[in-house]
Amino acid sequence: MIREITAQMLDTESFIKDKVAEIKTAVGTGTAINALSGGVDSSTVTMLAHRALGKQLRTVFVENGLMREGEHERVVRLFRKLGVPVEVIDARNDFFEALKGIADPEQKREAVAQTFYKKVFGRIVKESGAGYLLQGTILTDVDETVAGIKRQHNVFAQLGIDPEAAFGYRILEPLIQLRKDAVRLLARALGLPTELTERIPFPGPALAARVIGEATPERIAIVRKATAIVERMLTGTKAFQYLAILHEDRVTGIRDGRRDFGLQIELRSWDSVDARTATPTRLSFDTLEKIAHEIVAEVPGVVSVTYNIAPKPPSTIEAV
Amino acid sequence: MIREITAQMLDTESFIKDKVAEIKTAVGTGTAINALSGGVDSSTVTMLAHRALGKQLRTVFVENGLMREGEHERVVRLFRKLGVPVEVIDARNDFFEALKGIADPEQKREAVAQTFYKKVFGRIVKESGAGYLLQGTILTDVDETVAGIKRQHNVFAQLGIDPEAAFGYRILEPLIQLRKDAVRLLARALGLPTELTERIPFPGPALAARVIGEATPERIAIVRKATAIVERMLTGTKAFQYLAILHEDRVTGIRDGRRDFGLQIELRSWDSVDARTATPTRLSFDTLEKIAHEIVAEVPGVVSVTYNIAPKPPSTIEAV
Repeated sequence: MIREITAQMLDTESFIKDKVAEIKTAVGTGTAINALSGGVDSSTVTMLAHRALGKQLRTVFVENGLMREGEHERVVRLFRKLGVPVEVIDARNDFFEALKGIADPEQKREAVAQTFYKKVFGRIVKESGAGYLLQGTILTDVDETVAGIKRQHNVFAQLGIDPEAAFGYRILEPLIQLRKDAVRLLARALGLPTELTERIPFPGPALAARVIGEATPERIAIVRKATAIVERMLTGTKAFQYLAILHEDRVTGIRDGRRDFGLQIELRSWDSVDARTATPTRLSFDTLEKIAHEIVAEVPGVVSVTYNIAPKPPSTIEAV
Repeated sequence: MIREITAQMLDTESFIKDKVAEIKTAVGTGTAINALSGGVDSSTVTMLAHRALGKQLRTVFVENGLMREGEHERVVRLFRKLGVPVEVIDARNDFFEALKGIADPEQKREAVAQTFYKKVFGRIVKESGAGYLLQGTILTDVDETVAGIKRQHNVFAQLGIDPEAAFGYRILEPLIQLRKDAVRLLARALGLPTELTERIPFPGPALAARVIGEATPERIAIVRKATAIVERMLTGTKAFQYLAILHEDRVTGIRDGRRDFGLQIELRSWDSVDARTATPTRLSFDTLEKIAHEIVAEVPGVVSVTYNIAPKPPSTIEAV
């Protein structure tokens, strides 16, 4: 049983001190490696590990082809300003190869996780000789993995997998006692810019979790465009998370006076404290219609846009 | 080219007088038949024809298994009060047989239309010896059929089909110059009760148009339940039309703490004058959340509910 540290209980300074010391002790004179996705969890782990290890840390951004518009350039630039070098690895082909023909959500998550750990990042870790892998697992990931709702890619212990035997390295998870709200407090205390600390959550399988059915390069490109519009329009709102989902179902539309059997994008925006429960944000219809208008105008093939109105539970935050 | 009579131009009393006379002249001493679905168009035609023909008219309600909850009982009861006898024909097996394995919207519409005209109603008409069929085609149906957006089941002339040669009867379409708003004025003038005149539009292929993918008896039962909730909650609003759509895509949900890969219902509510263009009704979030709550609580398997936020065009009113 993991002991939770709530946002209310969290003393950021002493938590940072403790974790920096723990990481230092664990790694010793060795080296550690971590993968940075640009989300608040992996950004926070990167900063904690950077404080603890300096040049003993190697931080890698895996370009899997499933990231948001301009994502790796943005992440590299922000961390360069913080004095943390980030190495970008282009592995797009590996991921799309692994995702080919897969429509089932669990199999998709599995394909992304396996490609990441075994093929791409696993190889990098082995070649690097690093003995430690730092991960941004948080308590909600553990809960959901144990409950069987969602298989998070970074929760090995709960699944009975020994990463040292399976992958050749040991895993450190310094955020495992925290939920999202506590991680944000920590991120701020570590000096991360608002652009990173206030970043809305983004799923492990990235945009592959945002298309229902097969995640082809073409379908990922469509949902990436819709995601950029949604994020641009909703940045600055108080919503916990917002996202665009490309459906597989086709719906009838009309373009230039002719029938167009087209695509549908679902928009979700959630109010939540810790992702355990969530309700749809009561966005104004001005905003909803503006987003819908931009999506049908700018994203090729889309004729319909919906907004999620069901809470979690029984919905989940993501659809895949 | 059909000359439109707008709601503003419509003189209901003289229109009724003219059409009653036209129908009388056409049918003479013969008999006519019409199919009543309970929608405002077919209800209005039934009353017009009843005034013109009395006992020379036979009105049939075809129970195709695709109608809304309690529909045929309701329609028979309302028309009995108006002195119009309605005969119910159970043809559920014929329709589900024809719909088996069909996912394409056009093919579905075609299957429902062909079953209705050729197999079920065509046979009834032939056996009845009626020489005339009265239909509730309105101008919007013609526009959309000509434009190729949607194939309405009751617009033969525009498709180059001669019904007399193809089906053995002649067709009278007394509402063909009107759009929906004018039909409502006419319905009121004919003494139809509000429950019928203010009825929101309902598509020709009925609930088969409200499921994406195959219209099986099970899927129709699911969307029927959702439709009943939506109609109960939105009756009395000023919306032009509202509907529930059962998607084929599955989305991740959570039930009793476990993952449930479940169903999604899309809710659409439209503001429109004549269905040519339409915008989503700005329903309150109290209403939207209440509908979503009832649907996930009462409709088996549903874990997600969305609300349409795109206008027509590029969307259409219905998804199928």
